Amino acid sequence: MTNRLRGIGLACAMFVLGCLAAFPASAADREKLLSEPGVYGTFAAFRIDPEWGRLEQSLRISQLTAMKGVVEQHREKLAIDTYLLRGLSDHADVLLRVHGTELKDAQQFLLDLQNSAFGKYLTSVVLFNGLTKKPNYVPGFSDQLKADLKGPSETGPYVMVMPIRKDAEWWSLPQAQRAAMMQEHTEAALPYQKDVKRKLYHSTGLDDVDFITYFETAKPEAFHALILALNKVQEAKHNRRMGHPTLVGTVRSLDQLIEVLAQ
Amino acid sequence: MTNRLRGIGLACAMFVLGCLAAFPASAADREKLLSEPGVYGTFAAFRIDPEWGRLEQSLRISQLTAMKGVVEQHREKLAIDTYLLRGLSDHADVLLRVHGTELKDAQQFLLDLQNSAFGKYLTSVVLFNGLTKKPNYVPGFSDQLKADLKGPSETGPYVMVMPIRKDAEWWSLPQAQRAAMMQEHTEAALPYQKDVKRKLYHSTGLDDVDFITYFETAKPEAFHALILALNKVQEAKHNRRMGHPTLVGTVRSLDQLIEVLAQ
Amino acid sequence: MTNRLRGIGLACAMFVLGCLAAFPASAADREKLLSEPGVYGTFAAFRIDPEWGRLEQSLRISQLTAMKGVVEQHREKLAIDTYLLRGLSDHADVLLRVHGTELKDAQQFLLDLQNSAFGKYLTSVVLFNGLTKKPNYVPGFSDQLKADLKGPSETGPYVMVMPIRKDAEWWSLPQAQRAAMMQEHTEAALPYQKDVKRKLYHSTGLDDVDFITYFETAKPEAFHALILALNKVQEAKHNRRMGHPTLVGTVRSLDQLIEVLAQ
Amino acid sequence: MTNRLRGIGLACAMFVLGCLAAFPASAADREKLLSEPGVYGTFAAFRIDPEWGRLEQSLRISQLTAMKGVVEQHREKLAIDTYLLRGLSDHADVLLRVHGTELKDAQQFLLDLQNSAFGKYLTSVVLFNGLTKKPNYVPGFSDQLKADLKGPSETGPYVMVMPIRKDAEWWSLPQAQRAAMMQEHTEAALPYQKDVKRKLYHSTGLDDVDFITYFETAKPEAFHALILALNKVQEAKHNRRMGHPTLVGTVRSLDQLIEVLAQ
Amino acid sequence: MTNRLRGIGLACAMFVLGCLAAFPASAADREKLLSEPGVYGTFAAFRIDPEWGRLEQSLRISQLTAMKGVVEQHREKLAIDTYLLRGLSDHADVLLRVHGTELKDAQQFLLDLQNSAFGKYLTSVVLFNGLTKKPNYVPGFSDQLKADLKGPSETGPYVMVMPIRKDAEWWSLPQAQRAAMMQEHTEAALPYQKDVKRKLYHSTGLDDVDFITYFETAKPEAFHALILALNKVQEAKHNRRMGHPTLVGTVRSLDQLIEVLAQ
Repeated sequence: MTNRLRGIGLACAMFVLGCLAAFPASAADREKLLSEPGVYGTFAAFRIDPEWGRLEQSLRISQLTAMKGVVEQHREKLAIDTYLLRGLSDHADVLLRVHGTELKDAQQFLLDLQNSAFGKYLTSVVLFNGLTKKPNYVPGFSDQLKADLKGPSETGPYVMVMPIRKDAEWWSLPQAQRAAMMQEHTEAALPYQKDVKRKLYHSTGLDDVDFITYFETAKPEAFHALILALNKVQEAKHNRRMGHPTLVGTVRSLDQLIEVLAQ
Repeated sequence: MTNRLRGIGLACAMFVLGCLAAFPASAADREKLLSEPGVYGTFAAFRIDPEWGRLEQSLRISQLTAMKGVVEQHREKLAIDTYLLRGLSDHADVLLRVHGTELKDAQQFLLDLQNSAFGKYLTSVVLFNGLTKKPNYVPGFSDQLKADLKGPSETGPYVMVMPIRKDAEWWSLPQAQRAAMMQEHTEAALPYQKDVKRKLYHSTGLDDVDFITYFETAKPEAFHALILALNKVQEAKHNRRMGHPTLVGTVRSLDQLIEVLAQ
Repeated sequence: MTNRLRGIGLACAMFVLGCLAAFPASAADREKLLSEPGVYGTFAAFRIDPEWGRLEQSLRISQLTAMKGVVEQHREKLAIDTYLLRGLSDHADVLLRVHGTELKDAQQFLLDLQNSAFGKYLTSVVLFNGLTKKPNYVPGFSDQLKADLKGPSETGPYVMVMPIRKDAEWWSLPQAQRAAMMQEHTEAALPYQKDVKRKLYHSTGLDDVDFITYFETAKPEAFHALILALNKVQEAKHNRRMGHPTLVGTVRSLDQLIEVLAQ
Repeated sequence: MTNRLRGIGLACAMFVLGCLAAFPASAADREKLLSEPGVYGTFAAFRIDPEWGRLEQSLRISQLTAMKGVVEQHREKLAIDTYLLRGLSDHADVLLRVHGTELKDAQQFLLDLQNSAFGKYLTSVVLFNGLTKKPNYVPGFSDQLKADLKGPSETGPYVMVMPIRKDAEWWSLPQAQRAAMMQEHTEAALPYQKDVKRKLYHSTGLDDVDFITYFETAKPEAFHALILALNKVQEAKHNRRMGHPTLVGTVRSLDQLIEVLAQ
Repeated sequence: MTNRLRGIGLACAMFVLGCLAAFPASAADREKLLSEPGVYGTFAAFRIDPEWGRLEQSLRISQLTAMKGVVEQHREKLAIDTYLLRGLSDHADVLLRVHGTELKDAQQFLLDLQNSAFGKYLTSVVLFNGLTKKPNYVPGFSDQLKADLKGPSETGPYVMVMPIRKDAEWWSLPQAQRAAMMQEHTEAALPYQKDVKRKLYHSTGLDDVDFITYFETAKPEAFHALILALNKVQEAKHNRRMGHPTLVGTVRSLDQLIEVLAQ
């Protein structure tokens, strides 16, 4: 019952928090950042210092409110998505995905976040930087295959992020040979198009991996089957690293994330 | 003698704790979750912050009572098994195995657990997500071999959990060749069927390994002999990783686990 | 508004800090240290203890003022560049690049830094020592290629630092064969000369890698394309390690860095 | 002089501690546990939290006294040996070797130890579980070789523990071929029999290695020469891992260990 | 100015410390320990807990005084050299090299050190144990080569320590073949004899590496050139590990080290 009362108090606080979303980013801009090539994507996963969880709830809520302000302010320029990893991943507690046209905007956002009272309890454990690009291999695919490559527009609640590093041999292969292998890869993935949303970021040089692969699904078993299918094609032999870490979590709006953390 | 008195006080507290098990999960549901395909299994191993152990015993007991409430509440939907790793494994102190039809239910349970007063002293050190599936290779086995594949229904007290990651070559082999190797594997394991209970989870894409293998036994030496036998078959050459970590511990009911931690 | 007021107070503090730059290093000396062979370069990346961020702002500003004094004092002998990694790299928060004619001068600077009040909250997480040398392979290149090898004189704001360790085979190859591969490498890099500034340090024996490669650019996508091009040449097969860690950040003057940290 | 007085106080405390050894394990039982096959050996290495060392000496001594009680109590069932690693190994401070007929008895001991006031400052950093078995290969050796295989009955003060993991090929070799290689191994080790005491534990499946090799010697240089000789035989090529960690320390009775820790 | 005053106070404290060197080890003994075969060398690198640096200076100085006493006392039996790694190495802050005829004397010294008030803030991060031996291969070299193998008698201030682990193939090679490769190695190193002082320790079995190579030089660039030359000979292909960590620092007398730490 004590818990229930606290729950009600929390719900009120959450309501107030909900009203603070003062700078809604233009939906059109967000759409563009999430779909166009030439956009930078930064994935930042954090561990929350256990000490923070032991602070007074009212203090934690006021710190989360301030943090929310930081996020909303940067949403003017950036598309910011939030995820909860805790409970599905041992690497980190929360994940942020930040899209912008300049990497330094993402850096400024993360600086402001870490400089907030809540942010001073965050440890950065994984940070990947990537770039969206026009598809390398798709232009050579058949029209049928291109048409089939439409994924679901809505999905979640599950998110998976897997970094990939190719071996030296892969990069030395002629473009045609890589294209043939990527066509095999693409065809193997086709049956899962409608259940698993995918997005690819190129990150060679921008961190220690070559690609960041981002997935959303409502059916983890379909995602499992997809990765299994991808493991069986020839191109998989050129993965020097795949995962390590595989980040698994759920899509949560900022308010939902705050609600979990405020408890 | 001081110790003995404390022991009696503790026993009383334990008795009260025992009476709190207010939401017994249906035994039938649990049976189904533990035997059917298409069920998700999440393995979460935690380290307990040494600071927690230095708190007053009465505070620790009240925190464990609250934690028990969290577990019982989620047992409505989930089958939750608890294990003690401390003393047999250096990776973590306790292990939870959670079965459910939705990964997000396991996440919600682990969130509620980590949000409890006791949970705020837990660090997640290993988290594996897997999926139970119909056997891949067994359908092709002889009736005799299928019949032999009945393991013990009761076992423990020892538990071993070993993650496995296959190499790229394994996945590229034709199904028939993998099936032949798995038959050799299965035959090598047969002599240990009656002493060692096994359960397999598929986890490609859901974490950084391909399989989670779960074992229970009353005879660790039989388990040792089983793994030795499995190391000698051809399929073992395709294990890129086996163990690392190998989690070893004992099966403990929640009350037993609480009793150990309350001391 | 509270934030804005604090912001104004901070700006004043920053102004005072700005006036403290009492020992400007001779620009000519700096130019020499940054361009000549036979100069040592030490790269030191630090994590800031989260506790520091929770100290009173006035205390933090006074500690940063003292730290600035330490840096300025050593600028008499050393060229010291400062970078912010936080928000673009998970390895560390800040990076210092120190050029000098003696390694012990860099050590003395870093000792004095870590002995300052602020420095007592820094943990050294990456430290590379390198040496600038006359180009090994360039003398054999054509005049045209040599002429093309002029990079941009001004760049930033992005910085990338990648350590490289070659394999045993590389070192055992005849000089002519290595020179041929390095010519291929150089030609592949040419198209990115005007967008990406590069500097090479030799570090075999001075730390655990063979080279430290330093890059500055205003266009991270050009840097990405450069590394992709370098991955495709033959010489890349002899990289036993490239990155791990790849340090990514932005160039910040000492005052700019202090401003970020003071918040 | 202050030190000397404290030293005398300490000596008295030690004397009292010495009188507490209330449950001496039967020497015969200990002899059996240390010599027979089918016995489990658990190696647990701990780091002591530096904070503990800064507690008042009187408090530390009373905590060590309580810890001694825990050890003595479990010596009824278990053979417990204690070692000091600090100063010869960077992996841990102390090592316990526990022999028993049931792994769960070792777990219970380590639980009780970690639940003691002193134990709450211990972090488990290495834990190996092994099993003593009848020799695999010795039965096929010549009588002469068998006779030569008598090691020293008394030794120390040095202890070395090296875990070994064999490669996949090793396990797939026919028994005869492995036996031939083990005979070569045994003959190479013969010259060191009289200076180095050896004991072998099989641990496949019980932790992440295949063997735990335990050594005692008064002459570290003889042990060095032994391992060098073993590196030169064919079987060594099948060691995927040997050491990592190599634990090096000295044999210390519980009282001697307590004396070191009490300072 | 405050700093300058503190500096003067510190200088006085240092003077007092300097007068405490009460037990000077016989120079002859030290000479023997540093030059003869059959001597054990223990390399212990420590991190200093950042908390220690934040203690009052007077307390720190008194703790360093006590630590100095511990070192001086053990110098009766042991040759103890001290180095500062901070600022040139990210692995540790200080390094001790201890020579003695018995490993247990080094252990006792390190125990006493870690039991001192200052020592309770030290974490042991690297510990290597090695043994000096008569040269394996030199006896077969020509008289000219033997004569050339005289290094500098005085050097510093730089120190480099690199552990080496050979591959399995190396140990299985016939002695003659290894001797031929070591002659090539020795000849490649000759040009650097006069600038770089070298000392070799054999450590197979005494820790996780096969050799500890110790270097002193006044010219880091000469050391760099030496290691580069050694990377090019055939024997280098048998280095499974070289460095990791490479410890780089400067030779400091105990008083000099204390002076740095007292600030």
